Amino acid sequence: RINGERLWESLMQMAEVGPGVAGGNNRQTLTDADSEGRHLFQKWCEAAGCTMGLDQMGNMFATRAGTDPDALPVYVGSHLDTQPTGGRYDGVLGVLSGLELLRTLNDLDIKTKHPIVVTNWTNEEGTRYAPAMLSSGVFAGLHTQDWAYARVDAEGKTFGDELQRIGWRGDEEVGARKMHAFFELHIEQGPILEAEGKDIGVVTHGQGLSWTQITITGKEAHTGSTPMPMRKNAGLAMARVLEKVDEIALSHAPHAVGAAGHIDVYPNSRNVIPGKVVFTVDLRSPDLDVMTDMETRLRTQAQAIVDAMGLEIEFEKVGGFDPVTFDEGCVNAVRTAAERLGYSHMNLISGAGHDACWINRVAPTAMIMCPCVDGLSHNEAEEITPEWAAAGTDVLLHAVLETAEV
Amino acid sequence: RINGERLWESLMQMAEVGPGVAGGNNRQTLTDADSEGRHLFQKWCEAAGCTMGLDQMGNMFATRAGTDPDALPVYVGSHLDTQPTGGRYDGVLGVLSGLELLRTLNDLDIKTKHPIVVTNWTNEEGTRYAPAMLSSGVFAGLHTQDWAYARVDAEGKTFGDELQRIGWRGDEEVGARKMHAFFELHIEQGPILEAEGKDIGVVTHGQGLSWTQITITGKEAHTGSTPMPMRKNAGLAMARVLEKVDEIALSHAPHAVGAAGHIDVYPNSRNVIPGKVVFTVDLRSPDLDVMTDMETRLRTQAQAIVDAMGLEIEFEKVGGFDPVTFDEGCVNAVRTAAERLGYSHMNLISGAGHDACWINRVAPTAMIMCPCVDGLSHNEAEEITPEWAAAGTDVLLHAVLETAEV
Ligand SMILES: NC(=O)NCCC(=O)O
Ligand SMILES: NC(=O)NCCC(=O)O
Repeated sequence: RINGERLWESLMQMAEVGPGVAGGNNRQTLTDADSEGRHLFQKWCEAAGCTMGLDQMGNMFATRAGTDPDALPVYVGSHLDTQPTGGRYDGVLGVLSGLELLRTLNDLDIKTKHPIVVTNWTNEEGTRYAPAMLSSGVFAGLHTQDWAYARVDAEGKTFGDELQRIGWRGDEEVGARKMHAFFELHIEQGPILEAEGKDIGVVTHGQGLSWTQITITGKEAHTGSTPMPMRKNAGLAMARVLEKVDEIALSHAPHAVGAAGHIDVYPNSRNVIPGKVVFTVDLRSPDLDVMTDMETRLRTQAQAIVDAMGLEIEFEKVGGFDPVTFDEGCVNAVRTAAERLGYSHMNLISGAGHDACWINRVAPTAMIMCPCVDGLSHNEAEEITPEWAAAGTDVLLHAVLETAEV
Repeated sequence: RINGERLWESLMQMAEVGPGVAGGNNRQTLTDADSEGRHLFQKWCEAAGCTMGLDQMGNMFATRAGTDPDALPVYVGSHLDTQPTGGRYDGVLGVLSGLELLRTLNDLDIKTKHPIVVTNWTNEEGTRYAPAMLSSGVFAGLHTQDWAYARVDAEGKTFGDELQRIGWRGDEEVGARKMHAFFELHIEQGPILEAEGKDIGVVTHGQGLSWTQITITGKEAHTGSTPMPMRKNAGLAMARVLEKVDEIALSHAPHAVGAAGHIDVYPNSRNVIPGKVVFTVDLRSPDLDVMTDMETRLRTQAQAIVDAMGLEIEFEKVGGFDPVTFDEGCVNAVRTAAERLGYSHMNLISGAGHDACWINRVAPTAMIMCPCVDGLSHNEAEEITPEWAAAGTDVLLHAVLETAEV
């Protein structure tokens, strides 16, 4: 079993880097705080005797050597970046549980045939730079590195420039590494495990995601002196689309969800009818047919709304992936580990996207989930117990040991 | 008659200060560009032989002496601040037509019994600091100066600090000046004069305005892993309120308008369900009963929406005034001037708020309007013709001469 106290202490120390305003974190990708968090992680890894690799997307790889020079490494990890008002565990638990696993193997002087590598994937959250899971996506060959470097944030700064600026652009070719397997421990970010009273979620699938960025163009005009029939109110058109997003997701309940988290209104002045709105609709389902249906209906219905109002609309898909089925062997390793350790468990479909969803395309992959209070995530109030964190890390340790062969 | 070419040249020169991105202006109140525009206006006024007064709200008063030391001055003017994506004439025409009037009187060596004062009122637009017409409001005793100084912009900077910073806080007590009359020339910002083919709008009334800032609080949560029934989506609640705003205004058509120009969503991340939205609803009507009805229905219906969704709501009235009836004598002076000069004219109700609406409470006041292309304003593409500007300024000149007594 791992050292739960040490794990918790590291989680709390990492949470001091890039503090939020309400007890959580704002350690968005490629900020100074992100860099500081990376240095802390690197210091810990080096103290644990690991060598640190860094690729051209800033992905970090801390390696503990194996006994067989020909054996491919078993990878674990997640991400250290957070939402602007993010929690202390989303992603961080997956990285620091990997570190705790190495520390435990060191304590017990256990050697594995396969090397073990703890990974910190760059820009999982996708807030500052869409899409989410950007760098694991480049690693898995979904995006080119040039395309990723050219992503811009709200201030017009590119991913490539910011990666260079914070000093974490490495030399290693992205995706060159071959993996024996990949395991990611993550908090559930949903309410099911807590409601069912289970310690461990054995993640068998991940739901699909579609991000459609919509730009509606109306006409800026005076809110007081412009007669109602002459208005081209882009904000009102957006309101009507948002209602449709809710309707479309609910029509597939409980197998779909939908919302818009990102909304920008121009020129955003109290007495100017919005001339332009840009917002991103997030639609998800574990069922590919449902995904396709929702995307089609969104575009058709939004188009009909703006046509009726005489406005213009543009759609851009800024992120997306199909529903995922994780590797049977790795999933079984997780389930077996939970059983052997006596933790209650159940199968889960991940509601969120994870780096594991992309890595699953290039290596046998599985995920472990632990509960989080009230299913709350992407909120500074995100909370878990030290016991949940320890149970998840124990399962990670045993699944990895089985796969990396002692 | 005034010198239309000189007027137009000054308008074009002022438009070079704080240029926008599409041919208009971004000379928001208390910015460096605002200060630069003020210096240019001051230079022109001094060249025209005026003395410049400056009060503690930064209101500027350029005085041309009269022949009777006991006669109260006749005031004209408007504002030099603009929307973030504003036009070149909204407000500016009212100030620079006053300047042109003085230059014409100088050219013709005409002396008036009453002094004539050209005013630039601070922060008419109300974009950076709500409410609109802030400083004419303090002048007319509607707001206290301390309250006005404490207004904050989106970055948390106060009006008082920013006024000090740009160097335009004067010593003069605000509202101490007594006026014989006040005239404001302004572009219509609506389509009526152009559609009716009239040169001049004789403004008899101004419609009332109500700005309600609404804060809806939901719960930030993950857009992927939070089940639909557990969501508290503040963005969706806002969408429903925006639809109601449109319904409420249309129910009083054509005697009311309504829209929301200002919308901020928090934390504004693609994969976070909005936990908070702050937006401002702008409702207007020339009829006080309609205003009251609309405000009441807005609050009742918005409350019902959030109650049904389990969210919280707060209302704050951040701006407002009752419908205005301008002074009969001043209105007649405008109509007589238009007739004498042979300009076609019609009565108008102002759709927008103006400094004249506040000054009307402390002095006999009237407004003159000239057409603008397609009724478009609060848009960089706002346009008028030199002939329209000259006609309005001619009417201003004659109304003022009648009132100031030659
Ligand atoms: N786990 C997580 O929050 N990932 C971000 C990508 C997503 O929105 O699902
Ligand atoms: N004229 C003008 O645009 N004033 C701003 C106040 C308002 O919104 O009516």
